[in-house]
Amino acid sequence: MTSFTIFGTGNMSQAISGVLGAGGASVQYIGSQDQNATVDGDIVILAVPYHALREISSQYGAQLEGKVVVDITNPLNFETFDSLLVPADGSAAAELAAALPNSKVLKAFNTTFAGTLAAKTVGDNKTTVLIAGDDVDAKERLAAAVRAGGLEAVDAGALSRARELEALGFLQLTLAASEKIQWTGGFALVR
Amino acid sequence: MTSFTIFGTGNMSQAISGVLGAGGASVQYIGSQDQNATVDGDIVILAVPYHALREISSQYGAQLEGKVVVDITNPLNFETFDSLLVPADGSAAAELAAALPNSKVLKAFNTTFAGTLAAKTVGDNKTTVLIAGDDVDAKERLAAAVRAGGLEAVDAGALSRARELEALGFLQLTLAASEKIQWTGGFALVR
Repeated sequence: MTSFTIFGTGNMSQAISGVLGAGGASVQYIGSQDQNATVDGDIVILAVPYHALREISSQYGAQLEGKVVVDITNPLNFETFDSLLVPADGSAAAELAAALPNSKVLKAFNTTFAGTLAAKTVGDNKTTVLIAGDDVDAKERLAAAVRAGGLEAVDAGALSRARELEALGFLQLTLAASEKIQWTGGFALVR
Repeated sequence: MTSFTIFGTGNMSQAISGVLGAGGASVQYIGSQDQNATVDGDIVILAVPYHALREISSQYGAQLEGKVVVDITNPLNFETFDSLLVPADGSAAAELAAALPNSKVLKAFNTTFAGTLAAKTVGDNKTTVLIAGDDVDAKERLAAAVRAGGLEAVDAGALSRARELEALGFLQLTLAASEKIQWTGGFALVR
């Protein structure tokens, strides 16, 4: 069974660990108060705000070498809800991959609100975690853990597709913030 | 009842006209063989490939002044299925709005496959047409016609959100082309 480390202890951290735990995976947590912790997991999920990625990369980069590292961020300008903080042709995941060249960086969980991870459904649809990345084996390991936890997982392509996943996450957040959808709703993927 | 003109006679044209007709709207068609036709509709839907937008803008620009013009394109590089043909911080809709400064340009129908417009459902969910644009009245008129036809319509924000709608359409097309989803599936919006 795959072992996970989750950075962050907020609602997304809790929702993701609920999924992974339901599938039988072990989960270690590292909070912002844990300085220089030892990263035990084979797959490391950075359930932190976008602005925290740089410090984690800097502080834990050596420990993250060889590991699968999952970026879940939506790098919005949350003051305006009208733009992203990353280059329009790039993504937070691409920035993370550049900062962690010896890690296998994936993008996942940024298109599923915490509520739909916890409920395992979006409306009447099983919640689907979209996973992008350049390492097929890494994607399949994360997907297997997600499916074991009772959700769907779909390979969304190369890490370059993180641009589109972050656009989707951005759009979904604007729809919720403008009350067009509820935080228990959002985009469901129908196969 | 709003009158529509649809440029193009392909499967998206047919699916959209099926929705509008079910709602009682009148629909005029203009095909590529119709040179210098008279545009009768108050709302004009350009159900054509991205590369055809420029010629239509050039040929029909004067007739389209003051009208609502709807861009449905997904400006993919269909040879690679790996990038868009528009600037990363822009959209086909933004280009169209620049070419038609006296029209009210909307982005819509690019995130719904023809099959889900015709079926009116995506899986068990009612099909939702996402509409972006800077003219609130124009969006509401299109949304009313879509709802009259039995689908949902949601205001996705300003025309600048066409960047995100086109990213969503791009992602959805790559998922279908790689057989992760069927052409009868895709992203459903759960309120």
